[in-house]
Order: sequence, then C-alpha cells, then structure tokens
Amino acid sequence: MEQNVEQVVNSFKQLVHKMTSYYEALGLLGWDLRTGAPRKGAELRAETIGILATEAFKLSISEEMGSYVEFLSRPEVSAQLSDVDRRSVKECKAEYERSLQIPPERFQKYSSLTTHAQTVWEEAKHNNDFVGFEPLLREIVDMKREFIDYWGVKETRYDTLLDMYEPDMTVAKLDAVFDRLKSRLVPLLQKIQQSGYTPEHDFLKQNYDLQKQEEIGLFLLEQMGYDFEAGRLDESEHPFATGLNPGDVRITTHYYPDDLLSAIFSSLHEGGHALYEQNISTDLVGTGLATGTSMGIHESQSRFWENVVGRSRVFWDQYYDRLQQLFPEQLGKVSKEQFYQAANRVENSLIRIEADELTYNLHIIIRYEIEKMLFNDNLAVADLPKVWNAKYKEYLGIEPPTDALGVLQDVHWSGGDFGYFASYSLGNMYAAQMTQTMRKELPQFDEWIAAGNLLPIKEWLTDKIYRFGKSKTPSELIMDITGEELNPDYLADYLEAKYADIYKL
Amino acid sequence: MEQNVEQVVNSFKQLVHKMTSYYEALGLLGWDLRTGAPRKGAELRAETIGILATEAFKLSISEEMGSYVEFLSRPEVSAQLSDVDRRSVKECKAEYERSLQIPPERFQKYSSLTTHAQTVWEEAKHNNDFVGFEPLLREIVDMKREFIDYWGVKETRYDTLLDMYEPDMTVAKLDAVFDRLKSRLVPLLQKIQQSGYTPEHDFLKQNYDLQKQEEIGLFLLEQMGYDFEAGRLDESEHPFATGLNPGDVRITTHYYPDDLLSAIFSSLHEGGHALYEQNISTDLVGTGLATGTSMGIHESQSRFWENVVGRSRVFWDQYYDRLQQLFPEQLGKVSKEQFYQAANRVENSLIRIEADELTYNLHIIIRYEIEKMLFNDNLAVADLPKVWNAKYKEYLGIEPPTDALGVLQDVHWSGGDFGYFASYSLGNMYAAQMTQTMRKELPQFDEWIAAGNLLPIKEWLTDKIYRFGKSKTPSELIMDITGEELNPDYLADYLEAKYADIYKL
Repeated sequence: MEQNVEQVVNSFKQLVHKMTSYYEALGLLGWDLRTGAPRKGAELRAETIGILATEAFKLSISEEMGSYVEFLSRPEVSAQLSDVDRRSVKECKAEYERSLQIPPERFQKYSSLTTHAQTVWEEAKHNNDFVGFEPLLREIVDMKREFIDYWGVKETRYDTLLDMYEPDMTVAKLDAVFDRLKSRLVPLLQKIQQSGYTPEHDFLKQNYDLQKQEEIGLFLLEQMGYDFEAGRLDESEHPFATGLNPGDVRITTHYYPDDLLSAIFSSLHEGGHALYEQNISTDLVGTGLATGTSMGIHESQSRFWENVVGRSRVFWDQYYDRLQQLFPEQLGKVSKEQFYQAANRVENSLIRIEADELTYNLHIIIRYEIEKMLFNDNLAVADLPKVWNAKYKEYLGIEPPTDALGVLQDVHWSGGDFGYFASYSLGNMYAAQMTQTMRKELPQFDEWIAAGNLLPIKEWLTDKIYRFGKSKTPSELIMDITGEELNPDYLADYLEAKYADIYKL
Repeated sequence: MEQNVEQVVNSFKQLVHKMTSYYEALGLLGWDLRTGAPRKGAELRAETIGILATEAFKLSISEEMGSYVEFLSRPEVSAQLSDVDRRSVKECKAEYERSLQIPPERFQKYSSLTTHAQTVWEEAKHNNDFVGFEPLLREIVDMKREFIDYWGVKETRYDTLLDMYEPDMTVAKLDAVFDRLKSRLVPLLQKIQQSGYTPEHDFLKQNYDLQKQEEIGLFLLEQMGYDFEAGRLDESEHPFATGLNPGDVRITTHYYPDDLLSAIFSSLHEGGHALYEQNISTDLVGTGLATGTSMGIHESQSRFWENVVGRSRVFWDQYYDRLQQLFPEQLGKVSKEQFYQAANRVENSLIRIEADELTYNLHIIIRYEIEKMLFNDNLAVADLPKVWNAKYKEYLGIEPPTDALGVLQDVHWSGGDFGYFASYSLGNMYAAQMTQTMRKELPQFDEWIAAGNLLPIKEWLTDKIYRFGKSKTPSELIMDITGEELNPDYLADYLEAKYADIYKL
C-alpha cells in the first residue's frame, strides 16, 4: 500500500472508531433509560441523547469524512484496500451522502423528538390515549416526510425508508413477496379455522412465579450459547437487544405473572439478536462493520431461535421436563404434546408480539400497508386508528376494542422507525430459507435440538452469518448460504407442514 | 440586554449544555462499568470513555469557548448578565484558561499515565510493592510539578493544587486550621486512650444477611429524603455517588457479610452527596453550575449525614428497634447504648476509610503534610514510605507493618489527585460549623431526629446550601450560613462533647 493511502486509511479508521464511541454511549444512554433510569432524569436524558446523537451525526457528515471517503473510493486507491476496509469505506460513504442531505438542526430536533416520544408513547399506551400521543406522532411523521425529500425519493417515497433497514429492498419486491405469502397463508389459516380443532391452552394463563420465569429464561439463553460475560439480561416494558460493543450485547425481556410463554419466547428472540452481535469477528471491531447487516437478517436470527428452534417439538423434548419441574402445580398434568400444541396454537389475535408464527405475518402486512399509505398516499395520522381497525377486521376478522390493543401497541413509530416492520416477516422468510440449507448441511439438526445440543447450530450460524457482520449485504448472505434469492415459499412450506401436523389437515 | 450580548449568551449556554451532555454520558459509562457491565466489554468501554472525555476536553478549550468567555467577561458586558450567567461565565473562563495552559500532548500523556497508573497501583497495593509503583508515581508527581508551572504558582506551589478542589483555600489558611485542630484533637485522643474504656464491638462482626442490609439501607435513604424517582442504589466494589443530571443522582454501596456498619454508613454517606445534587435548583440546569460547589462542601454533606446524623444517639433512638428486629439473632441481646457506642468507638488505626470521626482527621493531616512536602519542599517520591510511617508513628502512635497498609492504601495519587485529601477534613469542619447554626435555627433538631423526622433538616440544607449548586463559592456559603469563616473549633467542640459522654472523660 502506498504511504499516503495507508495514512488516510488510518485517519479514516480513527474517525470511525470515534463515531463508534458515540454509538456505544448512545446505546447505553438508551438502554439505561428503558431498564432502570429514574423517571425524573428522563427529560434531560432525552436532551443529552439528542445532543450526542447530533455530534455523532456531524462526524458522519464532516468534511474530514467527506475527504476520506472520496479519496478512498477512487478506483486506483480502493484497489489497494483490504476487503473489509473497502466495505467499511463504502458503508461510510453511503451514510455520508445520505446524511449530508439533512440539516443538522433538523436532525437534532428529530433525535430529541423521538427520544421524548417513546416516553410519551409508553404513557399513552398505558392510558389508552391515542389523542394524547397523536400530536407527537404527527410531528414525527411530518419530519420523516421531510427527510424523505432530503434523502431523495426512490421508486416510491416509502422505498426510501425501506432501503434504510433492508438495503436493496423495494416496495415492488415486497409487494410481490407479500402477495405470494398471502396467497399461501390465508388459505392455510382458513383450513386451520375450518378444522374445528383448538389446542388446549388455558393452563398457560395461570399464575407463574416471576423469579422462576427468569430462571428458565437465563437457563435457555445459556443453552443457546448466549455469553453472559459479554452481556446481561434485564427487564423492560418492551423487550429489546442492544449491542454496545462486541463484548457487551445486552438483552431485555418482560415478565408477566399470568403468562408463561411471553418472557420465554421474548428471551429466545432477543437472545437470537444477541448471538448475532456477540459472534461477529473481532477483526471488524472499529470498522463500523461490527454489527448486523440488516434488520431483516437480524430478525431472521431472532425469529429462528424463537420459532424454528424454540417452538419446535424437539426443543421441548429436551426442555419440557425442566419447565414442568419448575411449575409442578401449573403444568404437572399437562403433557409435553399438550404444551407444544398450546405454544403453537393459531389464533386471530390483536397483539403482534403475541401472535403465532402464521398470523404474525398478517400483522406485519397490515403495518406495511398502513406505512405505505402514510408515506405514499399521505394518510393523516389522525386516521390511523380507523385504518388500523379496518385492516384488522379485513385480515384477521377482529377489531381492537381499544387503541392500546390496536394502533398504540408497538414502540416503533414513537422512535421514528417507519419501514422497519417488514423486517420481521423478511426475518421469518430468511430464517425458513436458511433452515432448509442448514438441515441439509446438518442432518442431525433435530436430533441435536432434542438432545439440548444447540451449540453446533450456533457454530453453523456463526460461520455462515454472524462472523461477517456488515461485511456482506443481506442479498449476498442469502445467496451465498442458500444459492438463491429470497423466496417466500420456504416459509409457507414450513408453516404448512407444521400446522398440517398439529391441526391434522 | 443588547441583542448581540443575548445572542452570545445563548450560544455560550448551548456550548455549556453540550459539554454537560458529555459529562452525563461519561458519568453513565463509568457508573455502568462499576455496577454491572459485562467483563468482556470493559476494554473497549475504557477506550470509549477516553475518546469521549477527550472530546469534552476539546470543547472546554475550543476557540468558540475562548471567544465567548472573553466577550462575556468584558466589564460592560458582564454587567448586563444575570448573576447565574455571570458565575457560569466565570467558571468556564477559569477552566478554559487553566486547561489552555497545558500543551495538548502533555494532557494526553497525563491522561493515559494516570489511567494506566490506577491499574498498576491496584496491583502494587495487592502485592505490597511500593517499588513497583514508584517509577509511575514519580512520573505523575513530576508531571504535576510541571503542570503547576503551566497553571502558575499561587502563594506556594501546593496552593495551586489545593485551589482546584477548594476554591480560595490556601496553605496558609489550612496550616492554621489544621494546627488548631491538632492542638485540640491530639489531647482529646490521649484522654480517650487514658480512660482505659473500650466499648464492646465484637457483635458487629457476625454474619449479617446481605438482603437485609440492603433493606435497612434503602429504608434509611428514604427516611433522609433521598428521592428514588431521581436516583437508584446499586452495589459496587467501592461506594460512590454520581450525579448524571439533577433528576438522576445515583449512589452505590458495598455489602460485606461480616460487617454490619460498612454498608449502612456508606449508604448514608453517599446519600448525603446525593441529597446535595438532587436538590440543586432547576434554574441552574445547563449552566454548568448544577453541581456541588467544591469537594469540601460536598464532603460536608456526606459526612454530616453519615456522622452528625447517622452516628448520633438520637438517630438510633429512632432506628435501632428496626435494626434489631431485622437481625434478632445478632443484636437481640445488644442494647441500643451498646450499639451506639460500638458505632463510635475510637481507635488508632492504619486505614483512613475505616477510621472513627476523631482519628479520621489525623489521617488527613498526615496526607496534607506529606503532599505539601512533595510540592513545596521537593520531597523525593522514593522517600514517601519512610515519611508516611514516621508521621503515623508521630500522630497515631502506630506504624504500618506493610506499605499496602500504609502509603499505598489510597487510590488518589495514582489518579493524580494531589490536593484532594484536605476536602475530607474540611467537610468535617464545615459540617460541624453548619450544625451549630442549624441547631440554633432548628431548636428541635435532636427531637426531630429521635422521631425519625429528618425532612425538615433536608429542607434547611436545601435552603442554605443545596439549591445554590456552584453559584456560591464555599467561603460565601459558610459565611452566609454561619456568619463567620471556617472555624475548626466547632468540630473540636462537637467531638469533645461526644467522646466526653461516651468515654466518661
């Protein structure tokens, strides 16, 4: 490498490292706010987050960054870089060019607005008060609309948002994928409903000691290979995972006294996100690539561990005894098969995060369609509850009795995360497609799970996905692993087989 | 106010607010590291802290800051400012001018040196290896000597360091104050020793359940008015308090299974620091003045709650029953008076942080005299153990058998904190002097404590001290409250009366 190139690469890396430091601080400030920060400090904390996020933002669009990425992207210079450095430059250049469009004072406004809005949303949800939340949400949507203009409209306005969470994903592709998925899942759902069979499940809603719930959650996380020396489990209103640095990837869950499954499956879900971040190659530290490559791939990991593994019959072959022993009064007379079926009961329900694997995708499609309306058809924020309720009626045949159980249920919009929801279904589809390959390459897949031998699965995922961090794009990953592009049929096949068995279709 | 002045004031405030945001983030990153951060993230976390601390430092010496404080300090401009703004400008100007004297590469060197030295000191203390620590300590002392030249020598070289922790404090003043204190405390200590009386205290060293220790700590903090909606209590290796923002002031303690008093009194101590920070007027938020005015005043509050209140007989009149009920096996046969006396036992000991209220001040005077020798008389670092041991022999009649129990015991020097130690005794003296006034203005002082009615005391302190934050200097505060300058006789009077009673002198 030429002397000059080497110097610029080093300065570039130092700048990226500095930005990474801001992200770690911001991650911790946010984690703390949602796990244990005292109430009275929250308002000033939101300002602090806004100010530091702006500082990090300013670095990403600094002249310094501009000159580095310009120089390092020149073909004759780029050719001298390592693959990782080249990808790192590409990422920073894309962020630089995108961010440069946003006036910093608008960015700062947006940061404090969305931090503040998450607290207001929590209260609004608690009090079933959409009207109290509406003005803030309107402000957020208006700013997002403004930002789309800054960033530039892709094929449609909503495409601009989608691309931020899932590079190269478009409304056109998603419309096609979701249409295909609907065309297979809606008939499946009808068959299930027509079967007349409903697995017993009342036993899930008894009183389950919170400490024992935590105990089983910690145990299962350990089993799947979550490293507690590089993370911790806490409680928050809404479960989440956050990677502060590769040696500090934290997860949260929420314990409900009258719900056995919620905390267990959310722990597996967030644990999946965390396994990804914990197992990124240390070579990527400080390059800006030591994180998941997209939200869709991230969700493929959380949904894989939660559903493909956690809701499988073989998983409970191994772990049901332990669960039963923890809760002998509640589960003593419940057979493993009864429990498995209850954990996989399909039901048209109101709450996305409690939905079964099948209807879950319909919850996502509803949100996807509403967000498209917000940004491509200028749907008014005030009309959200009406539209929400109508779509639930249309797709799931039920209407939320309150906004808390409807349009207010998710945290995402309060954080400005429009364009994110599709990731969950993409995650389901990626996971099913990858599992297909995994089963071929690891023929003992089921046996291992049944034996509680989950580590080879983690190893396989580390080898194929985790270690690469952001150094491969989602489409590169799915192509390299499975040999084909995203294909919704794998998810449909998986769900058809699973429910044909449970519902004897 | 002129248009232009108003604009500059606003820009200045924004810059101060930005710096405050860095301090909040740094505070949280440090708190987290010491309370619950996973081990494997610690190394990268340390880098993050270093990088963000440097960013904050750069802001404090930025051209922007320089131009604001220059303009806003001009007499004709300063006259137009509010009192708070004027003080805020004065503070920032002082910090700006002080920091600007240090060549940035020397600051950087000093930062990494002291960060590294703290790790080396820990090992040296553990291995009783002064010689292993000496080269680094010599480097630190040399750099501090160099910095004194940059900052400018006040009355004496050591004065320059003292002033950084306690504005306007000088060697001349402290020499006089400590001489007076010694002249009264040394004879008192002799009388106590000659009394031949030693309160029973073995019962303090039984096995005390950690959860119950936490329970009583939380209860007492609530009693003194610590606001758990603006703070939280956690455990760390060494207790500390940290004000992230005025609505988020956290404290920690450390529970020892075989020591009942350590956690109780460190909770009261850190609780005192926290009460100060929690009750600063919200008007000061974002001015840089929303913090304690000096280390001495801060310690006056921690020592007041720990000792004047927490080690008083009336305090345990109220709370001993509860403690006894928590630990019936351990304390069932211990009378309230026995407990009170055990908590106030005087003993010539080697370790400062375990010392009683009386000898504690001698530990401080020893350190003060040694530091003066280091900076005013060029004492060699290699001679520290010899001098240390001689002073312990002289003042306390005992000699440390090892350097770990002697010159290596405190963390301060490894961090470059020369000039800090005096704050602890200043805190004791301020506290005693303020208590004298408080007793006059609140004649029911003892009755209230005996009735567990601590809030009027907190109110009084808020009114006289807490709310002002850094907008009054320590000398202004003590003069406004008590009508006279710092006077060591109040502390001596207080201790003489207390121990005359316990030791029947």
